[in-house]
Amino acid sequence: MGEFELIRHYFAAAACAQGGEGVVLGIGDDCALLELPAGEQLAVSTDTLVEGVHFPVACDPLLLGQRSLAVAVSDLAAMGADPIGFTVALTLPQVGADWLRQYADGLNRMALRCGVSLIGGDTTRGPLAITVTVFGKAPAGQALRRSGARPGDLLCVGGYLGNAAGALPLVLGERTAPAEVAEPLLAQYWSPLPQLALGQLLRGRATAALDISDGLLADCGHIAKASGVALQVNAEQVPVSPALQAFLGQEAALHAALTGGDDYVLAFTVPEAQLSSLPDPGVIHVIGRVLEGQGVTLRDGQGQDITPAQRGYQHFRETP
Amino acid sequence: MGEFELIRHYFAAAACAQGGEGVVLGIGDDCALLELPAGEQLAVSTDTLVEGVHFPVACDPLLLGQRSLAVAVSDLAAMGADPIGFTVALTLPQVGADWLRQYADGLNRMALRCGVSLIGGDTTRGPLAITVTVFGKAPAGQALRRSGARPGDLLCVGGYLGNAAGALPLVLGERTAPAEVAEPLLAQYWSPLPQLALGQLLRGRATAALDISDGLLADCGHIAKASGVALQVNAEQVPVSPALQAFLGQEAALHAALTGGDDYVLAFTVPEAQLSSLPDPGVIHVIGRVLEGQGVTLRDGQGQDITPAQRGYQHFRETP
Repeated sequence: MGEFELIRHYFAAAACAQGGEGVVLGIGDDCALLELPAGEQLAVSTDTLVEGVHFPVACDPLLLGQRSLAVAVSDLAAMGADPIGFTVALTLPQVGADWLRQYADGLNRMALRCGVSLIGGDTTRGPLAITVTVFGKAPAGQALRRSGARPGDLLCVGGYLGNAAGALPLVLGERTAPAEVAEPLLAQYWSPLPQLALGQLLRGRATAALDISDGLLADCGHIAKASGVALQVNAEQVPVSPALQAFLGQEAALHAALTGGDDYVLAFTVPEAQLSSLPDPGVIHVIGRVLEGQGVTLRDGQGQDITPAQRGYQHFRETP
Repeated sequence: MGEFELIRHYFAAAACAQGGEGVVLGIGDDCALLELPAGEQLAVSTDTLVEGVHFPVACDPLLLGQRSLAVAVSDLAAMGADPIGFTVALTLPQVGADWLRQYADGLNRMALRCGVSLIGGDTTRGPLAITVTVFGKAPAGQALRRSGARPGDLLCVGGYLGNAAGALPLVLGERTAPAEVAEPLLAQYWSPLPQLALGQLLRGRATAALDISDGLLADCGHIAKASGVALQVNAEQVPVSPALQAFLGQEAALHAALTGGDDYVLAFTVPEAQLSSLPDPGVIHVIGRVLEGQGVTLRDGQGQDITPAQRGYQHFRETP
């Protein structure tokens, strides 16, 4: 048995690879087979993470395993889909048994938390990169899209923003912080929990949704463009964690919350009446409103437009 | 608009990205959405190709576009599935407009030939690698697996073998050949045509199937193992193209047909009565038989067992 054959056997033995609802045939044949209940549609998303671009060289493989699956499953949450399965295409420079055991452990832990089964994959030799493709289901016509926001809707997010961006100096070892500050930031970076329950709750209620990966303002721009509306974000309503404020100070923390990526918290638009009818999931923050027009505007507490210095976000990238 | 945003727009404009049967929502949201007719199951497969491992450095991007999709769709053929869609995760060292235009052109051509729609993807910066995930459908319970071969079944393949392995010295520029020899070999390497029609014809008839990617003997080993049977291959029945014989000579051509990878021709087992009831697709060659036992044996014209010098196959790999 070759080393890559060993890897496949190793992954096939993981608890998350033992099938599950909707999985007819898992790892080991030319294709996996899934089935959908009548009236449901399949949601599919693919994400690639490359070493030195999306995660630091020589990072903890267990954390990488968790993160590589979480960022992909988050796209299912953004559609309001129920997770079914995932494939992982792993390109590795060499085969280290310890690295693989830890990576598979992290992947398995996140898979069990999200209720998603490993159904297949591919292992190749090359520079370290990971492509995860996730599969979920949603009742026909009820998946949340980016394109349905209407003027008058409220703009909401599903939790604190900026923690993952704030974690970067800790991830890169450039700074340290006391545990009560470092832990919530690092947790958001390394094991963001896809907001699956929130997404499913929003089906039939939210008019548009996505998960924040490029940064709040950039991602609001995606909703505005897809929906043909303008979004107004009220800076003082943007939720910032006490840990992030303690680590960066108030101003830089807000900047991270507005422009930092990798939080994988949901942003969505919802008619006001629908929001009040939602069972309180305890995480929703209203941060603005949908208006006629186009683009995204940011307002301060006095109702003045602010132009943040940096609106976009470049994912973590090491200088070569 | 950033360069990667441009790429996404570029792919979204391709003819194969304009939706199709089963595609509810294509490129541009957090997930694509697919629907299945009642009674059908979804077939899924993921393949990664890495530069310098699965294809030569600085190869023709149009050919690479064709090949990167074909090898993935071939897994749908092996299951007898009807193709629906695919995602492509593209990792690129830099963004060259010419390269991308040609790559997308090749991808688009193969997609239109196979009747499969581009439904999503991801573009990242890093060493050149391509992960394609394909989606198809098959009536519940009718997808072809590797595990159903039974003693007494015939072992068949869907066409000439060894052409892709024979093409390698041409692909690498180590040898040249007259056009009538080079063209069929290079075509099998760069744009293998997934045997979708054959796979669909075999549903309900073949007892096991796969597409030959690792080499005939190695892949027969996969069927033997999954089915708990032995396979006997008769060397003189293995189909070898006139071009391959002209290029390599008879003995080396047979060796390439037995052990060379990357042909993406179907191998399958079928009860004798089913085979004679098949409408003749003009490509089926009986090359052996399923027996009680385990493993794969190779027989010469005198019924003697042969042990080939090399049974496995290492995909193309450049020395670093």
